[in-house]
Amino acid sequence: MDYSTIRYDVADGIATITLNRPEKMNAFTNRMMAEMIAAFDAIDADDAVRAVIVTGEGRAFCAGADLTPDGGGGPFSSDEPVTDLSDDRVRDGGGMLTLRIFQCQKPVIGAINGAAVGIGVTMQLPMDMRLASTSARFGFVFARRGIVPEAASSWFLPRLVGQQQALEWCMTGRVFDADEALAGGLVRSVHAPGELLPAATALAREIIDNTAPVSVALTRAMLWRIPSAPHPMHAHRIDSRAIYTRARSGDAAEGISSFLEKRTANYPDRVASDMPQFYPWWDEPGYE
Amino acid sequence: MDYSTIRYDVADGIATITLNRPEKMNAFTNRMMAEMIAAFDAIDADDAVRAVIVTGEGRAFCAGADLTPDGGGGPFSSDEPVTDLSDDRVRDGGGMLTLRIFQCQKPVIGAINGAAVGIGVTMQLPMDMRLASTSARFGFVFARRGIVPEAASSWFLPRLVGQQQALEWCMTGRVFDADEALAGGLVRSVHAPGELLPAATALAREIIDNTAPVSVALTRAMLWRIPSAPHPMHAHRIDSRAIYTRARSGDAAEGISSFLEKRTANYPDRVASDMPQFYPWWDEPGYE
Amino acid sequence: MDYSTIRYDVADGIATITLNRPEKMNAFTNRMMAEMIAAFDAIDADDAVRAVIVTGEGRAFCAGADLTPDGGGGPFSSDEPVTDLSDDRVRDGGGMLTLRIFQCQKPVIGAINGAAVGIGVTMQLPMDMRLASTSARFGFVFARRGIVPEAASSWFLPRLVGQQQALEWCMTGRVFDADEALAGGLVRSVHAPGELLPAATALAREIIDNTAPVSVALTRAMLWRIPSAPHPMHAHRIDSRAIYTRARSGDAAEGISSFLEKRTANYPDRVASDMPQFYPWWDEPGYE
Repeated sequence: MDYSTIRYDVADGIATITLNRPEKMNAFTNRMMAEMIAAFDAIDADDAVRAVIVTGEGRAFCAGADLTPDGGGGPFSSDEPVTDLSDDRVRDGGGMLTLRIFQCQKPVIGAINGAAVGIGVTMQLPMDMRLASTSARFGFVFARRGIVPEAASSWFLPRLVGQQQALEWCMTGRVFDADEALAGGLVRSVHAPGELLPAATALAREIIDNTAPVSVALTRAMLWRIPSAPHPMHAHRIDSRAIYTRARSGDAAEGISSFLEKRTANYPDRVASDMPQFYPWWDEPGYE
Repeated sequence: MDYSTIRYDVADGIATITLNRPEKMNAFTNRMMAEMIAAFDAIDADDAVRAVIVTGEGRAFCAGADLTPDGGGGPFSSDEPVTDLSDDRVRDGGGMLTLRIFQCQKPVIGAINGAAVGIGVTMQLPMDMRLASTSARFGFVFARRGIVPEAASSWFLPRLVGQQQALEWCMTGRVFDADEALAGGLVRSVHAPGELLPAATALAREIIDNTAPVSVALTRAMLWRIPSAPHPMHAHRIDSRAIYTRARSGDAAEGISSFLEKRTANYPDRVASDMPQFYPWWDEPGYE
Repeated sequence: MDYSTIRYDVADGIATITLNRPEKMNAFTNRMMAEMIAAFDAIDADDAVRAVIVTGEGRAFCAGADLTPDGGGGPFSSDEPVTDLSDDRVRDGGGMLTLRIFQCQKPVIGAINGAAVGIGVTMQLPMDMRLASTSARFGFVFARRGIVPEAASSWFLPRLVGQQQALEWCMTGRVFDADEALAGGLVRSVHAPGELLPAATALAREIIDNTAPVSVALTRAMLWRIPSAPHPMHAHRIDSRAIYTRARSGDAAEGISSFLEKRTANYPDRVASDMPQFYPWWDEPGYE
């Protein structure tokens, strides 16, 4: 894909997606949605990618949906309205992106460099970890625009920050700074602007340099999907199968050997080819 | 309804429910339950109400169930016991109240002015945000009385404060102060007694003065109900329908215009008449 | 049972399980799993036990699975592999322990005295409260060994520490200290080494000296099981039945009398004989 609204770079195991409409504060368009989804498809297909960083070019991270004709439609489109709300054309573009990030097999790190409002903040929620610059700003501003929290954020946000904080941010629609995001649990750390990408990169490196790719892909799916189950037995069914099969893999042999020999591990298995047979253990639901 | 155990006042878009048996530390009675439910019915029916504050008259917020004959029965009633536990007469009065608050269409803010013990603290859990006075005290004291946490608090409390804190407060039955409530995440802020109602009012105003009523009502239902779903696709189904329909509403047009014109918005849609056709998207379960 | 890998002591209402292979840093073996499960069976059967403390002998709490032949098999066993992953021989031993702790009817307190890595940390998650010594270390190191988080930890951990922190600890596999465990919400307090057991004992005493055993057993089951339900009505069904029956019990009469008389309560009902008829209200799922 030729990217025109993002940059996509891979170096040293890290794929960096940079939202790249700085003259528009990286406002979200239909085209940007399609390019980000294509980038996540490329990430999952490429064993050279071990971790993902998402950041923004210029002053903003993403100032929300582009409401001008450049936005390419979206929720405020003047297209002929459909009356059947189960029609695919009703689907929220932000949600199509966050559901794709939810399914990603690599760790996803948000490096939030500036304003992140509307879809600019809800797109972060299915990422695994979020770091903020001191100049970041956040806003679940939907109720201030006559709409509602989108991009499946009603499912993600209480998982990250608890019920009370999620309600306050979404009911007031307030724009808040990096310190409030940290205190509320939305971001895991705050950094000087020049230290943001180095910190995100160091976190990605900590994962890449120490862990087995198949282990991380399984861990990501387990930790996002299993907590919704009604009983820990569900986890036991999955992790028993995973431990049993992975313990007999070359990765486990190398994990133990390298640990005993106090050397860097060199795991043989790859996400694209070596996920266990019981994976995926779920059926992905469709829109309806 | 003639209120004798609470006061119900509406001013400037804010309904204030004041528990009003100060000589009994606002102890909870069957009558108070019925009056609070009636007040929430009035709140949902009245478009002039945009937010709710619940507080207590005098020194206490609510010192728990009134165990004297004034309490009017309740769990410790000496009525002829029923043997079929699915009988409606078995239903816990605290739970009937918290389920009603759960269904409220307006933001509910607890302004906890003093002692809040037993039902005095569990009635707060389905409220959206809680502020405490420095003189507030809290206690999930049920295990110290030979009973158990009620009012559906086993569902609400871990969502607010996490599993470990919920277990410690309910297993010890300890009475704790506002600072412990803040550190544990039960309340979002602590205030000098004279600053409590002004702070609660300011939070209500932040919502009222900036947001669309229908957006807030949808947001409240989404954030309380959707996180229980097993997959974010459930959120995507609801928020796609909500964004699609609200984006074509007068509220969204006004939200965008007022934002671009940097003026206060004047949203036309009302909760009593203008909720979207797909709302409610759930069937409310019954007691059985 | 003759315990050879743990010590099991009961005194003043507190059962203490001490992991007792200090020369191996209390590494987890099949034998230790069986002994701990037997200890929890003894705990639930013994009304003299009101609370449980789990700690480790020597420098470590538990340094993970014993990968030597002493470990007795486990995930890295060289036994003939089974091909049907629903076979009981596939079941993870750590999960069999954590599911047993999940079902315990008494409060379980972890007193984490030193290194707690792999199963050494995941076995703590179904405990109700965790206290750490300043010399404790924690590590969800699975991805650094080519395997995955086990012992149903993917279900437990996000409930305790939220989604973001759970993902970071499991994706990096980092070993972290007691302060990071406290900041992340894994432990509720940190103590000087000599103060750890006194603090755990004081917390157990706070429960034992003030609460009714049947109330605490019901509270434990409710707070661990009900939050997974899709609606607070589920809690209302259970707690209505519990309040209705317990309010008519000798425990409630004693709870009220002792409160009004400002004296220590002496609750008559016992967990082994006096749980209400509707308990358990669930069917325990099996491995399949």
